[in-house]
Amino acid sequence: MFKITIGSTTLEFKSIHVLIWNEFIHEQTTPAVAEIYPEGIHTAIAEGLRPYNFHIRTATLEQPQHGLTNEILSQTDVLIWWGHTAHDQVSDEVVERVYQRVLNGMGLIVLHSGHFSKIFKKLMGTSCDLKWREANEKQRLWVVDPAHPIASGVGQYIELEEEEMYGEFFDVPAPDQLVFISWFEGGEVFRSGCAYHRRQGKIFYFQPGHEIHPTYYNKEIIRVIANAVNWAASPFGATPTFGYTEPHEGIGEM
Amino acid sequence: MFKITIGSTTLEFKSIHVLIWNEFIHEQTTPAVAEIYPEGIHTAIAEGLRPYNFHIRTATLEQPQHGLTNEILSQTDVLIWWGHTAHDQVSDEVVERVYQRVLNGMGLIVLHSGHFSKIFKKLMGTSCDLKWREANEKQRLWVVDPAHPIASGVGQYIELEEEEMYGEFFDVPAPDQLVFISWFEGGEVFRSGCAYHRRQGKIFYFQPGHEIHPTYYNKEIIRVIANAVNWAASPFGATPTFGYTEPHEGIGEM
Amino acid sequence: MFKITIGSTTLEFKSIHVLIWNEFIHEQTTPAVAEIYPEGIHTAIAEGLRPYNFHIRTATLEQPQHGLTNEILSQTDVLIWWGHTAHDQVSDEVVERVYQRVLNGMGLIVLHSGHFSKIFKKLMGTSCDLKWREANEKQRLWVVDPAHPIASGVGQYIELEEEEMYGEFFDVPAPDQLVFISWFEGGEVFRSGCAYHRRQGKIFYFQPGHEIHPTYYNKEIIRVIANAVNWAASPFGATPTFGYTEPHEGIGEM
Amino acid sequence: MFKITIGSTTLEFKSIHVLIWNEFIHEQTTPAVAEIYPEGIHTAIAEGLRPYNFHIRTATLEQPQHGLTNEILSQTDVLIWWGHTAHDQVSDEVVERVYQRVLNGMGLIVLHSGHFSKIFKKLMGTSCDLKWREANEKQRLWVVDPAHPIASGVGQYIELEEEEMYGEFFDVPAPDQLVFISWFEGGEVFRSGCAYHRRQGKIFYFQPGHEIHPTYYNKEIIRVIANAVNWAASPFGATPTFGYTEPHEGIGEM
Repeated sequence: MFKITIGSTTLEFKSIHVLIWNEFIHEQTTPAVAEIYPEGIHTAIAEGLRPYNFHIRTATLEQPQHGLTNEILSQTDVLIWWGHTAHDQVSDEVVERVYQRVLNGMGLIVLHSGHFSKIFKKLMGTSCDLKWREANEKQRLWVVDPAHPIASGVGQYIELEEEEMYGEFFDVPAPDQLVFISWFEGGEVFRSGCAYHRRQGKIFYFQPGHEIHPTYYNKEIIRVIANAVNWAASPFGATPTFGYTEPHEGIGEM
Repeated sequence: MFKITIGSTTLEFKSIHVLIWNEFIHEQTTPAVAEIYPEGIHTAIAEGLRPYNFHIRTATLEQPQHGLTNEILSQTDVLIWWGHTAHDQVSDEVVERVYQRVLNGMGLIVLHSGHFSKIFKKLMGTSCDLKWREANEKQRLWVVDPAHPIASGVGQYIELEEEEMYGEFFDVPAPDQLVFISWFEGGEVFRSGCAYHRRQGKIFYFQPGHEIHPTYYNKEIIRVIANAVNWAASPFGATPTFGYTEPHEGIGEM
Repeated sequence: MFKITIGSTTLEFKSIHVLIWNEFIHEQTTPAVAEIYPEGIHTAIAEGLRPYNFHIRTATLEQPQHGLTNEILSQTDVLIWWGHTAHDQVSDEVVERVYQRVLNGMGLIVLHSGHFSKIFKKLMGTSCDLKWREANEKQRLWVVDPAHPIASGVGQYIELEEEEMYGEFFDVPAPDQLVFISWFEGGEVFRSGCAYHRRQGKIFYFQPGHEIHPTYYNKEIIRVIANAVNWAASPFGATPTFGYTEPHEGIGEM
Repeated sequence: MFKITIGSTTLEFKSIHVLIWNEFIHEQTTPAVAEIYPEGIHTAIAEGLRPYNFHIRTATLEQPQHGLTNEILSQTDVLIWWGHTAHDQVSDEVVERVYQRVLNGMGLIVLHSGHFSKIFKKLMGTSCDLKWREANEKQRLWVVDPAHPIASGVGQYIELEEEEMYGEFFDVPAPDQLVFISWFEGGEVFRSGCAYHRRQGKIFYFQPGHEIHPTYYNKEIIRVIANAVNWAASPFGATPTFGYTEPHEGIGEM
């Protein structure tokens, strides 16, 4: 954070604090994945986001508390989540902690196979199940809400030469805002960019990013993630109060 | 309408009154269309809907007031609309009349090229523009809201061997409920089944049905239209009152 | 179920199977509640719904499996839920069972203090917390979606002389459809009628019904519950398939 | 616009260009209004917004083309609209121009009696009618979407000692995002903060601001308008293309 004073105006700059969480397993156990993401998906995303002037940290499953301590989460504006094979190894205590932070205003961007993470399922209230196929097929993400800041800088669509297919029905609540719908070569469609408000928190599910494809080196995909960070970190209203409340007006006097 | 009394219970049956409106021009001027719909698209849809026990009438552009008199509209529960080449020939007075009926509870099902009709544009408040291509390509309509009554009786998707492509961005307000998303062979997607509430009226836009394809002979497509009729004709709340209103409570006494 | 044949037409009538669940504790432990609902809130609601020709059963917490066995749930089209003081005593196994039934198409109507039930919180993915006050104050439920079937037969609003206040912020996802907003004498508002789709299931949260007020004897309140039953029991689409899926189109051939 | 370079980083600052439009009639014809807003509502709002570092201009009905020329509109990021008694005097040509700019990304904030402006009705597709009462009654605007940037800096609610009552049913499409619901002393509620996306444009309807009350001197009300400006001016996606489009994939080859 730094300030600039010009005449009587002071501008304050606070970087958005982004935490990229990755289970970081495929990259260490599957050579084909290691070849694409030798330092992990989290590192590739962090590199991609470098031009966007965020304050970036990463965390992985193997760290104590998965790197998601109260202290770190309290310093995080937006959490990006990639997981796949080890959803069950994420401790319920940490999930509850992340959940409370989201309800209290931390942004959450769930990527690809993160659809089956405990935290996403808990926040959605549904199974988050879907159809899938690993066939290295072409995908095209069409913008269906051009007013949305998450679509900024993107053309009519983003094309990916090879991706895993995720197909409807995607078992999530109807998104508050649907930003992308995908076309897959094999014949399916998918709601690939889904935005939600939950209490003070903003959540964006973004579907591309199978570990055997170099999707997170794609500048348009990174652009969308950066947009989603800015959107999810945007200011929000006061913390709601709950429970017993005194009347504001006289009762029985009217 | 008829009643059945069994013991002390009387059941009342009121058929839903459906009016199918068609500009009915292509069928009379283009041999290829006449071959598919010799008696008009409206007649084909009416035939298709026969098993659903609606009370069905049709109307066309060439009739006085386009067959959309106050009397007929007041007897109509759900209006189905197909137009394409003659949107401008529909009189503004009739459009205003239909508009008022929709706001006052008449259901409206807008088919295919009806997206550019005056009535649909007026109700949407947007241009309703889209991308298109006539290439006899394959289309697959995926159900993305399996709780919706309009999807009843449909499987995971409906496949059409040949249709005109309608592609995103579709310039309509985000639908209140999105029931179908389409995949097109040429690479596009489309929000093909869009449900809206407007005051007391229910509106469903359903994309398939280009005049040179036998889409309205497809039993699944007809099934969706029948479902949409039932949905759009479902009961609704009281007519809102507007304007000056007396206070319900004492003011300045609290 | 019964059939009527008139000429060549056979009409089939299947009653909607409604199960009214009540924890049934206040009525047995608090004299003031017992006075209002001597046979339990569930019985009062069942009585109220009698004219609507549903097939009605009731179940309570104290029954084996809380009366929510697989068999009973599989025969239930719509489950109505009232609970307050004993949410924690509802077994997680039963909650999971109800949850699966909702996702697979059973309607769920959650009443009043049921906002804090395990099943509602699980389906919403949020805390479902709110502000409250027991001050016997006046409430007025305004219809804000007059196209909605749940508002059928209701005027501009429903007035209740005395109710518990539930106030915003109500920590639920923005409803797919918001049907009622309440005014409370003490100065608060509340989204009192919230409709949601979750996979094949429909959910309606309806706020009035504190145990010390005779709200469930109010014919308009019962009318709304009956409307919600009809809405939640309306037909829905096919059961989604999930998991690996073969391509519909050749891949890599284009 | 100005740039600041610090080491290798250059920060670019582009002020948001806000145009405040006011019909400016009541202030010149009604002494009670002139007393509150001697230089017009537009000037009061402009003053209020001064601390927010926007680039602000104003325009009024009496100016040539109502001050809404192509040139000025093309330089405007967000248009704020206040009108009441002279909606009909706004030329259709200007309305069409504003409409096109909104669809192409200009933000629009419609205040109070602007609900009946031609531009708002055209964009909504409904009558935008409502209930009203001038009784100097108390209003309380409750935040119902605390994740929304428009609620930033506001507490649980905003209280106004005296305002005109606007009551439901408000004949607009269900908002894409509902930010405020109002309580009125006389017994009504109102959806007072309604956010919409229309193609590339963002629209916010904000209900308070009757001309005989000093509402636009209230710092919280101004704060909401400033938030809405920032939200409506936020980046958006590419301009959609419409019309005939070549296939992206081979057709008939699969």
